[in-house]
Amino acid sequence: MTAPFITLTTDFGEADSYVAAMKGVILSINPAARLMDLGHQLPPQDVVHAAFFLAGAVPYFPPGSLHVVVVDPGVGTDRALLYAELGAQRLLAPDNGVLTLLERSLGVRRLFRLAESRFWRADVSRTFHGRDILAPVAAHLSLGVRPEELGPALTELHRLKFPEPRADAASVRGEVVDIDRFGNLITNIPASLISERTSFLAEVCGRTARSVPAYADASPGELVVLVSSSGLLEVALNQGNGARELAAKRGAAVILPSQ
Amino acid sequence: MTAPFITLTTDFGEADSYVAAMKGVILSINPAARLMDLGHQLPPQDVVHAAFFLAGAVPYFPPGSLHVVVVDPGVGTDRALLYAELGAQRLLAPDNGVLTLLERSLGVRRLFRLAESRFWRADVSRTFHGRDILAPVAAHLSLGVRPEELGPALTELHRLKFPEPRADAASVRGEVVDIDRFGNLITNIPASLISERTSFLAEVCGRTARSVPAYADASPGELVVLVSSSGLLEVALNQGNGARELAAKRGAAVILPSQ
Amino acid sequence: MTAPFITLTTDFGEADSYVAAMKGVILSINPAARLMDLGHQLPPQDVVHAAFFLAGAVPYFPPGSLHVVVVDPGVGTDRALLYAELGAQRLLAPDNGVLTLLERSLGVRRLFRLAESRFWRADVSRTFHGRDILAPVAAHLSLGVRPEELGPALTELHRLKFPEPRADAASVRGEVVDIDRFGNLITNIPASLISERTSFLAEVCGRTARSVPAYADASPGELVVLVSSSGLLEVALNQGNGARELAAKRGAAVILPSQ
Repeated sequence: MTAPFITLTTDFGEADSYVAAMKGVILSINPAARLMDLGHQLPPQDVVHAAFFLAGAVPYFPPGSLHVVVVDPGVGTDRALLYAELGAQRLLAPDNGVLTLLERSLGVRRLFRLAESRFWRADVSRTFHGRDILAPVAAHLSLGVRPEELGPALTELHRLKFPEPRADAASVRGEVVDIDRFGNLITNIPASLISERTSFLAEVCGRTARSVPAYADASPGELVVLVSSSGLLEVALNQGNGARELAAKRGAAVILPSQ
Repeated sequence: MTAPFITLTTDFGEADSYVAAMKGVILSINPAARLMDLGHQLPPQDVVHAAFFLAGAVPYFPPGSLHVVVVDPGVGTDRALLYAELGAQRLLAPDNGVLTLLERSLGVRRLFRLAESRFWRADVSRTFHGRDILAPVAAHLSLGVRPEELGPALTELHRLKFPEPRADAASVRGEVVDIDRFGNLITNIPASLISERTSFLAEVCGRTARSVPAYADASPGELVVLVSSSGLLEVALNQGNGARELAAKRGAAVILPSQ
Repeated sequence: MTAPFITLTTDFGEADSYVAAMKGVILSINPAARLMDLGHQLPPQDVVHAAFFLAGAVPYFPPGSLHVVVVDPGVGTDRALLYAELGAQRLLAPDNGVLTLLERSLGVRRLFRLAESRFWRADVSRTFHGRDILAPVAAHLSLGVRPEELGPALTELHRLKFPEPRADAASVRGEVVDIDRFGNLITNIPASLISERTSFLAEVCGRTARSVPAYADASPGELVVLVSSSGLLEVALNQGNGARELAAKRGAAVILPSQ
């Protein structure tokens, strides 16, 4: 199965040459590769955010797509680099937990540790495995190299521990797990946990948010809580930046009191 | 007529998965679609800036190009989503005024309101119509679906009111309507209004700018006024950021006194 | 020789329509052109950083790739616009020194000054030669126009003066020449100058950095010095932003004392 696309997701930004070098390496090996940028402005070295990014993006791609992920604070350590088949998607990424959420939703089919250096650049730096290992491996896969040629099979991914929400008869207690560009606070409370509530309140950072079906059902400047496009509860400031207004950070408690 | 390209313009940034999800949705429906990023760093929910962006970008594309625009502060309200043929360009966008300037320069040929949900994702969220409606509709259009299948015809676009410059024998009075990355202040004064002046002065934020043919005709640090690449007068600080230096905002008056 | 790819590198950002307009112009002339973004977030008008960007990106591309570069503070002056063949790479760029480092590593084969306006847009602005000259010339080259048709041959590129490191028996003295997104300080000291040292110290901004093979060999928050992916010494703060912590700027001295 040859990958129809190679997507790129990094925390490299676009001011420096890192992404461009990876593109050049891939195209030098397979000039017919179809490259696709998913995002290069991920917060530097933030594996948790990258895990949410991938969970929100990768499942929408056609089966067999190949996704290269470089958010890699452990570059140069003995952390493994992986080829992973999760559902029908294929990924190349460091084994640092970045695939945790995607594994939950798609399931693991096959894992290999990248070990066969014949698929790498001749000269592997200690600081840029995206260019020197992941990019050339992606290009070789797109040319038909079989995953089992890349290195030994693995049975388990490294997993991040994500905080679980707690629900009892009286209340639901969760926390902010991610913050997006608009300042929306994504919580770890899935829509399923509040399916019996038609309207409710949420407490966060000393403020109270009212549940609404959509951003636009709020008054300008009102703090609201709604089901986000990823199926998790989200606290949002209508026409404003909620994270800035509340000085909220990842980990801030979000409580749905009893009704 | 099948679109040769699908371009994407959003205010989603590239730190979050929103743009990537849209790409995945399009490619899952039409793996042969040729995607093109126009820009994803548009200021959040700034429909006015987006209108200028489109006016400066879309007319340069080949006839029949399809442009998906998601700057959509009204997502989840009853604002319409549109298919619009403006000149030889085709756009999918919320009906919130974002097409106002493009309509002025290209003219409207056909408008349809997106209503046929068989071209949408099965599960439409209240917060992310870019992924759930616009992306799949774009993909179906690229596969040959005819625009009139998408929903009922409309006769009018929602239009933004832009301030008009005022000119009399003595002076021209306009204002700053947009600010670009370099801190250049784009005004609403078209070059045609100053065609009789070979050299002139402009007053803005208590400062005076001298007219020059090009940035480089100014001294370093000098405030100048010139005809921008979009045909509007622009105030610029040579080798610096004019908007920051003048603390200028959209709406600031720009006056060309009598000579 | 027809270019398989046209890459785009600019300091335009992605909030404004400038990059998009260039893409439209290219595709209107050659709808089959394969466009590739290298980076559009280069610091505005920073020719030195752009020179490092190109040196770190362009050599990885397949022979015959065509790279359009718009970091052009001198637009509108009499600075030339160039077609340059450096090694097997082809570039279109202003003659402002942006190719200095790439010329050093790849060597010059041919240079032409863009002068034949029949390959330009009919209406050339004084402020946006990327759209009006470079983009259409790139498109025409991708359709088979020969470089010698573009204008007269040149013999020399404009070159930036880069500070050279000084080494004697006792010490090596260099300086910070570039700073990347992670706050890593790139110096002008090549790995070859320290090949005899297995471990060493570096002094920068009143602080001392210890040499390590990779970022991950440092303790969290430790300041270290290592060979970067470009072969130059680099000072980095492990899991932090070194430039911010040290308030370091381009030009800051970096000294490797005698051992």
